[in-house]
Amino acid sequence: MPRSPSQAPLSRSPILDYLESLHERFRGLSEGSVADYIPELARAEPDGFGICIATHDGFVYEVGDSHEPFTIQSISKPLTYGLALEENGEDAVLARIGVEPSGDAFNAISLRPHSGAPLNPLINAGAIAACGLIPGETATDKTARLLDAFSRYAGRPLDIDARIYRSESETGHRNRAIGWMLRNFSILEGDPTPALETYFQQCSIRVTCHDLAIIGATLANGGVNPVTGSRAIAEEYVDNVLSVMATCGMYDFSGEWLYRTGLPAKSGVGGGILAVQPGRIGIGVYSPRLDAQGNSVRGIAVCRELAADLGLHLFDASQRAVPAVRVATTRRSVASKQRRTPAAAEHLRSVGNRIRLYHLQGALAFASVEPVVRELMAHAADTECFIVNLSVVQRIDTAAARLLAQTRVELLRQGRTLAFSEAGAWWQRLIDAGVDREAFYADDDFALEHGENLLLAKRFPDAGSAAAVALENCMLFTGFDTDELALLDRLLARRAYHAGQTIIFAGQASDELFVITNGAAMVSIATHDGITRLDAFTSGMTFGEVAFIDRSPRSANVTALRDVECRVLTRDVFAQLDHEAPAIKIRLLSNLALGLTGMLRQANRELAVLN
Amino acid sequence: MPRSPSQAPLSRSPILDYLESLHERFRGLSEGSVADYIPELARAEPDGFGICIATHDGFVYEVGDSHEPFTIQSISKPLTYGLALEENGEDAVLARIGVEPSGDAFNAISLRPHSGAPLNPLINAGAIAACGLIPGETATDKTARLLDAFSRYAGRPLDIDARIYRSESETGHRNRAIGWMLRNFSILEGDPTPALETYFQQCSIRVTCHDLAIIGATLANGGVNPVTGSRAIAEEYVDNVLSVMATCGMYDFSGEWLYRTGLPAKSGVGGGILAVQPGRIGIGVYSPRLDAQGNSVRGIAVCRELAADLGLHLFDASQRAVPAVRVATTRRSVASKQRRTPAAAEHLRSVGNRIRLYHLQGALAFASVEPVVRELMAHAADTECFIVNLSVVQRIDTAAARLLAQTRVELLRQGRTLAFSEAGAWWQRLIDAGVDREAFYADDDFALEHGENLLLAKRFPDAGSAAAVALENCMLFTGFDTDELALLDRLLARRAYHAGQTIIFAGQASDELFVITNGAAMVSIATHDGITRLDAFTSGMTFGEVAFIDRSPRSANVTALRDVECRVLTRDVFAQLDHEAPAIKIRLLSNLALGLTGMLRQANRELAVLN
Repeated sequence: MPRSPSQAPLSRSPILDYLESLHERFRGLSEGSVADYIPELARAEPDGFGICIATHDGFVYEVGDSHEPFTIQSISKPLTYGLALEENGEDAVLARIGVEPSGDAFNAISLRPHSGAPLNPLINAGAIAACGLIPGETATDKTARLLDAFSRYAGRPLDIDARIYRSESETGHRNRAIGWMLRNFSILEGDPTPALETYFQQCSIRVTCHDLAIIGATLANGGVNPVTGSRAIAEEYVDNVLSVMATCGMYDFSGEWLYRTGLPAKSGVGGGILAVQPGRIGIGVYSPRLDAQGNSVRGIAVCRELAADLGLHLFDASQRAVPAVRVATTRRSVASKQRRTPAAAEHLRSVGNRIRLYHLQGALAFASVEPVVRELMAHAADTECFIVNLSVVQRIDTAAARLLAQTRVELLRQGRTLAFSEAGAWWQRLIDAGVDREAFYADDDFALEHGENLLLAKRFPDAGSAAAVALENCMLFTGFDTDELALLDRLLARRAYHAGQTIIFAGQASDELFVITNGAAMVSIATHDGITRLDAFTSGMTFGEVAFIDRSPRSANVTALRDVECRVLTRDVFAQLDHEAPAIKIRLLSNLALGLTGMLRQANRELAVLN
Repeated sequence: MPRSPSQAPLSRSPILDYLESLHERFRGLSEGSVADYIPELARAEPDGFGICIATHDGFVYEVGDSHEPFTIQSISKPLTYGLALEENGEDAVLARIGVEPSGDAFNAISLRPHSGAPLNPLINAGAIAACGLIPGETATDKTARLLDAFSRYAGRPLDIDARIYRSESETGHRNRAIGWMLRNFSILEGDPTPALETYFQQCSIRVTCHDLAIIGATLANGGVNPVTGSRAIAEEYVDNVLSVMATCGMYDFSGEWLYRTGLPAKSGVGGGILAVQPGRIGIGVYSPRLDAQGNSVRGIAVCRELAADLGLHLFDASQRAVPAVRVATTRRSVASKQRRTPAAAEHLRSVGNRIRLYHLQGALAFASVEPVVRELMAHAADTECFIVNLSVVQRIDTAAARLLAQTRVELLRQGRTLAFSEAGAWWQRLIDAGVDREAFYADDDFALEHGENLLLAKRFPDAGSAAAVALENCMLFTGFDTDELALLDRLLARRAYHAGQTIIFAGQASDELFVITNGAAMVSIATHDGITRLDAFTSGMTFGEVAFIDRSPRSANVTALRDVECRVLTRDVFAQLDHEAPAIKIRLLSNLALGLTGMLRQANRELAVLN
């Protein structure tokens, strides 16, 4: 029996406790009786009772006779219908089988007056017609296809109860009548026997209520079995299967079922009920005593209780949309890792609200993206650059991707930019929706730097690339007089690196402090999906100071981005200053401490935004 | 006309662009014909055409004749049914009106064979029976109730088209027959005339498709009109109303409608269609040409297109659950603001993974909380204290609250604690579900401090409350010799504060650095929901150093938590040291810089977790 890999032993799960109490509560319910229209079915153990819930990520909770086999019966119908859709396409199937609830009992013939099309695929007539649409000349071929599909749903090889099948076939006179009526209207072509025998065999497939829950979880998971990872049905037909279950799944109790539980479902006279909370969970219940409509008595009672206790109703008001915006902030609170000169930093602070950064979350669909579009358009007039981070987005549907693409076009028309950062797996969908490749940035850091450069280019059009900087213009050496600078010039080592060279390796001892006098460098660490930039600096800036002060080993690499010239203060020289030039030492320490408070304040601003 | 307050002028919304293109595409569709079963209806302008979408938070997009009035007709039926449920309760209503789709046309009588109960509330028989269940002796009384409820749905006072009403009443022979048949079965009691006249009047209520969209948004918003904020229907009945719309809303096209659009909806022969994406949006379409089933031809075409383009289908696989855990971390990465002595800090680092912190997000329901429960139970063996932060949770339903309460009970049984931080509005729901009052903390900071204290109490059982600390044991004075300490002792001012006194006011100049030698104090700022603690310290620790170094004004208050004794280093004394005791100045600066790197590394660890 395949089990979820995450099926770790739980000492006591409150969810399992709850299912056990539910099982205990309803095991005394002994109304109804086992189906007896064929002798083999009447042999079922009337007191068999199992309940199973499987989550859309494949975790299973089960109590009672959850591994007791029984025949799937009518629960096969929506699955066969799904396969018929996949094999023939929606139009061909809808031309032969309707999707209207009939209001009639399960074995009513219910054909449309003129076309002879069965009203829906979950009455016998519709199910037999669906069997006719499964490829294969013989019942054996057709049934092999069905068994293969059903087994992918269940995640294990299913088989047919041969005695039930014989019994179904021997007593299936009414269904044969339906088959010939379908032949009469050319809904079935040729001899109806293969479709009929396929129908009898599909009803006789053996399942457990554990299987039913997994089948439900597969439908909840867009058609992919969450335990095995294999696809049972194309995603585009899942909504069709669930729709017919919602309107026609429970015979002439379907309306009240949906009203009470709000769950698409299907019952079978073998005693099973399969229910699905779309996108969330599958439920399987087994208890063979049936009510007058042919539904499991305990099954209905348990599902009603589950739906109420667990708040599963599709239309429950608590299913309300969750805002897609997790964080909304501006360059006033978050900055790129590119350190700036004091003048540039000051300008960016003053116009920082012209760069807006949004972190989106959850499944992006029309209703969740619409407020984002509204927000962007409302700020179009006063914003230069919008950045939308997608790192924790779980899904972007086609409608949402299209809307984002159209919003970007409209913003560009107004002279604004919209950049996406950390698009990851959603890059292709956004490209397909029409977003240009140039809109994507690896992370917020680079997207922010791009926005900052746009703002700086307007204010300092001549800034261009950084040139060499004299010692007195380096931040660490602010406030020294000429003699002191001359002394420092003698004490500081000179180093040069080519573009791409590593200046500092993670793990090294931290006995040196660097000041970059020409060039550009970056601090970075390797992460699971590439390189993350932690800091970047150009001429005049200090690096390596944190580890230098607290003497911890280097925690990241520093790489030259262009040819770099540095001045290096070693720990020994720094120590000598205590006695040889205490005034210089005091100013260096003051400048270092001032730099640290700047970094600390920036980190705290970003923490405040994220919390 | 009431409008959303957020209805700011949008230069060009891509969503409005889309609706305009849809309107353009379908305005040429001229199949079908205006209802003519009563003369007044036949006078409608056949080419009238409006489309409107209202979001669950009350934002409106509309194109075409969205303010053209027409009569609501059958779209009144689900609203009246909702009021009947509110006034009589579910059981009383279900005893008289079923919820099964009939498969029949709208004017079929469709009563159950023995009870005479109409099959559902959206066929005429069911709607007339629902009018009988609205309180009031006369049609005037009943209609006044309905008008009031409908007006709350629409957010403006609605009225009745008197000519249509007269016309409906004069030609309503078939409906009178239904009324008397309902009287025959005692579904209606007494004279059926008031119920019938109420029915004719409710069908004649004038609306626009803007109104329909707002009515839909009200249902999507759990029964509260999102523009006006007033409740139109109790939340508990919203799922019932949407359920009957889903199975019976579009006459004998209901099954195919749900299959195609996946939206609960209701049409009327006045040319309106109301559709709802539960929890998300309301849609109103107006176009009076009807098909053979009595549904608006353009209305159906537009809704099918909208559902496909915008991905609105209820069972669309993209509606999958979003994980509730936004952040999962341990005390190794985040810490309380309570600064610790070096020994305590070292111990907390080594056992930090015994405190686990989770930030949850979104709407918490069974399916989203279940994986959280699974995670907590899986770590029960190796965790002392779980903290669950609820600050960005948008909703906790009863099932989720109960599950969290039961999980806490099970964890307590195993000797673990589960604390909730920032529960805010969800506090009451969790209390009602059985969570003890002692489980709640104002924020992560206090919850973490509680967890840290639990871990520290095991390792340092005798620690107790902090005592006075000598200068040489204060962190800032580490590494000084006896003479230096004696000098410092002379230079440092002494201050004492009573518990509760403010030591530093936000906005003050930052000319002093504090070392606490006895007592405890806290840095805090006032926020929109109270006080946020930024830092807390006890004997031996330094405070006020960041602003002292960068000379910015104080950004927060510091308050004595117990009686406090401090030593104070003024900026003047600090400056004098440059010349009078440079070695002391150098060590003080080194110790300050070291403290800053510690704070910076902690901030960066927390940023890494949150990003």
